[in-house]
Amino acid sequence: MIRIVVTGGTFDKTYDEINGRLSFGATHLPEMLRLGRSRVETTIETLMMIDSLDMTDADRARIVDACARSPETRIVITHGTDTMVETARDVASGVIGKTVVLTGAMVPYAFGSSDGLFNLGSALSFAEVLPSGVYIAMNGQHFPWDRVRKNRETGVFERI
Amino acid sequence: MIRIVVTGGTFDKTYDEINGRLSFGATHLPEMLRLGRSRVETTIETLMMIDSLDMTDADRARIVDACARSPETRIVITHGTDTMVETARDVASGVIGKTVVLTGAMVPYAFGSSDGLFNLGSALSFAEVLPSGVYIAMNGQHFPWDRVRKNRETGVFERI
Amino acid sequence: MIRIVVTGGTFDKTYDEINGRLSFGATHLPEMLRLGRSRVETTIETLMMIDSLDMTDADRARIVDACARSPETRIVITHGTDTMVETARDVASGVIGKTVVLTGAMVPYAFGSSDGLFNLGSALSFAEVLPSGVYIAMNGQHFPWDRVRKNRETGVFERI
Amino acid sequence: MIRIVVTGGTFDKTYDEINGRLSFGATHLPEMLRLGRSRVETTIETLMMIDSLDMTDADRARIVDACARSPETRIVITHGTDTMVETARDVASGVIGKTVVLTGAMVPYAFGSSDGLFNLGSALSFAEVLPSGVYIAMNGQHFPWDRVRKNRETGVFERI
Repeated sequence: MIRIVVTGGTFDKTYDEINGRLSFGATHLPEMLRLGRSRVETTIETLMMIDSLDMTDADRARIVDACARSPETRIVITHGTDTMVETARDVASGVIGKTVVLTGAMVPYAFGSSDGLFNLGSALSFAEVLPSGVYIAMNGQHFPWDRVRKNRETGVFERI
Repeated sequence: MIRIVVTGGTFDKTYDEINGRLSFGATHLPEMLRLGRSRVETTIETLMMIDSLDMTDADRARIVDACARSPETRIVITHGTDTMVETARDVASGVIGKTVVLTGAMVPYAFGSSDGLFNLGSALSFAEVLPSGVYIAMNGQHFPWDRVRKNRETGVFERI
Repeated sequence: MIRIVVTGGTFDKTYDEINGRLSFGATHLPEMLRLGRSRVETTIETLMMIDSLDMTDADRARIVDACARSPETRIVITHGTDTMVETARDVASGVIGKTVVLTGAMVPYAFGSSDGLFNLGSALSFAEVLPSGVYIAMNGQHFPWDRVRKNRETGVFERI
Repeated sequence: MIRIVVTGGTFDKTYDEINGRLSFGATHLPEMLRLGRSRVETTIETLMMIDSLDMTDADRARIVDACARSPETRIVITHGTDTMVETARDVASGVIGKTVVLTGAMVPYAFGSSDGLFNLGSALSFAEVLPSGVYIAMNGQHFPWDRVRKNRETGVFERI
C-alpha cells in the first residue's frame, strides 16, 4: 500500500483556455494510474495544488506532517521540480522509518510531450522496493535527498 | 548501465495506414526514453520484432543468449504480454547473477491511451534496484518470474 | 443543421487491449466535436459500425436511405476509405437536392497520429457551404463523387 | 493554392520546460498539415509569433500588407483569438478581391486537448470554397468579419 501525497507542481498544471494561462484544477493522478493500468494499492491525498516556487515553510511543514502521520510506510510525493530538493530535506529531518519518494514533471501531464507518466511509473516502483529514506525520482533515476540538485539550465536532476 | 533488449510485442506495434493493419516498424524505445527525459545509461539491442504469440523456442533461446552474453548485469526486456511468463521462465533457467526485468504494454505506445511509458519507467526503476533474479514488471508491480500469470480475461498480471 | 451519419471505418476503430485487435466500439464523434469546440448544430446517427471492405449492397442501400429521409439537407457521412467512392456513387444516384460529404481517416482517431480531427473539421465546413451534390472530403480537399479515386499505394485521394 | 500567414496566438504556443512558461518557437503548421495528410497546395509565411493581446497597429498593417501582396487569392491567417476580430476588420478594409479566413485555437496545438487541428481543417476548407471576403473560422463555423465577436466568458465565437 502506497500513499500518494499531491502538492501540485508542473505535473498537475493545466491550460485554462478562457484566460490562456497555466493553472491548477483537480489532480490528474487517478487518470494517470488508470492509464498505467496500475494495480498498486494507493491512497491519494491532495494536500495542496501550488507551484513549488510559491511553497512556504508552512506548506512544507504540512507535507512533513502528512508523511509523519501516514499509516502507509511507503509514500510518493508529487511536487514541483524547482524546490523539490528543499522539501526532500525537510521531510528527511522530520520523518523516520518510511520510504518517501518525491517526483514531478518537466512538462504538465495534460500536454502531449510530458514525462509525467514515465516518472510516476518510476516513482511508484522505487517506493515499492527502496529501504526507508527520502529520495528524489526523476529522469528514470533515484537519488538520496542529500545527493542531488536540479540543474536549472538543463532541467535535469544531477548527483552531487 | 542497463541493457534494453527489444523483442516487439504490443509495446512496439504501429498502425500501418496503407494496409489498415497493426504491424512492426522500428522500435519506439529511443523516443520513449527521450519523452521520459531519461538519464539512465542504456544500450538498446533490437533482437526481434514479433508478436509474442508467434515466438518460437528458437526465439526464446536467442533472448536467453542475449541476456547471458550481456556485459551489463541489469537488463530490461520489452516483450508481448501473452507469453511473457514463458520467456521469463526460460531466462531464469539460463541466466545467472543478473537482474532481468520483462515488461510490455496492453496498448501500443504509438496509440494515445498506452500504458507503455508508465511501464518503461517502472521496469527501468525495478531493474536499477532489485537484486539479481528474473522479474515481470506490469501494472506498476513487480513479480518474481515463478509467482505470476497473466489473467487473459482482465489483461492484468496477478501473483500466484 | 448538419446530420452526421456514422458507418464505422478506420475513423472509429479502437484497439481492443484484451484481444490485441482493432475493433469497433461506440463512435468517437461526440468526443471529437467536443475537442474541436464545435458549435455546429449536428445530429449524430450511428447507422452501422463496419469496415468499409465488409460493406454490402444492402449496407449501402441503408446509407442511401438514411440520406434520403434525413430532414437535414446537409449531411456528413463517416466511412472507411477503401470503398468510400463506391458508396458516394450510390448516394449520388439515390439522393437529390442535398449536400452530402463523405469523409474518413487513414489512422483511427483513437491513435495519436490520426488525421481524423482535421478531416472532420474539413468535412463539416465543406458540408456547410458547398451546393447540393455528393462529395468526398479527404486530405484537406473536396472532390465531386465522380472525379476521385483512392490511390491504394499512397493512401491519398486523387482527382480523376 | 492557399497562402497560410502565421502570426502566432495560442495555436502555436509551446511549453518552455526550462522556465515553466508558455512561449513561442517555430510554427507547428508544417507538422499539422502532415498530420492531416493535407494535399492542399500551401505556402507558409511566418510573419510574426506573438500573442494577439500584444499585437500593435503596426503588426496589423504588416498582416494587411502580407495579404495584399500575396500572389495567392486564397489565404488562411493563424491568429490569437483575443483580437482576431480587430485584425479581420483591418484586413477587410485593406484587401480586395481575395478570400481571407482567420482561425486560431483555444488550446495550443502542442497540448493534447487542442482544437487546432480541427480548426485548421475547417479554415482551409472554407478558404477553398468561399467567395472573396474576410471571414473568421472557429468552432466549426464561419462568420463574415463584421458579424462576429468572441464571447470572453465562454471562449466561443458568436454571430452578431
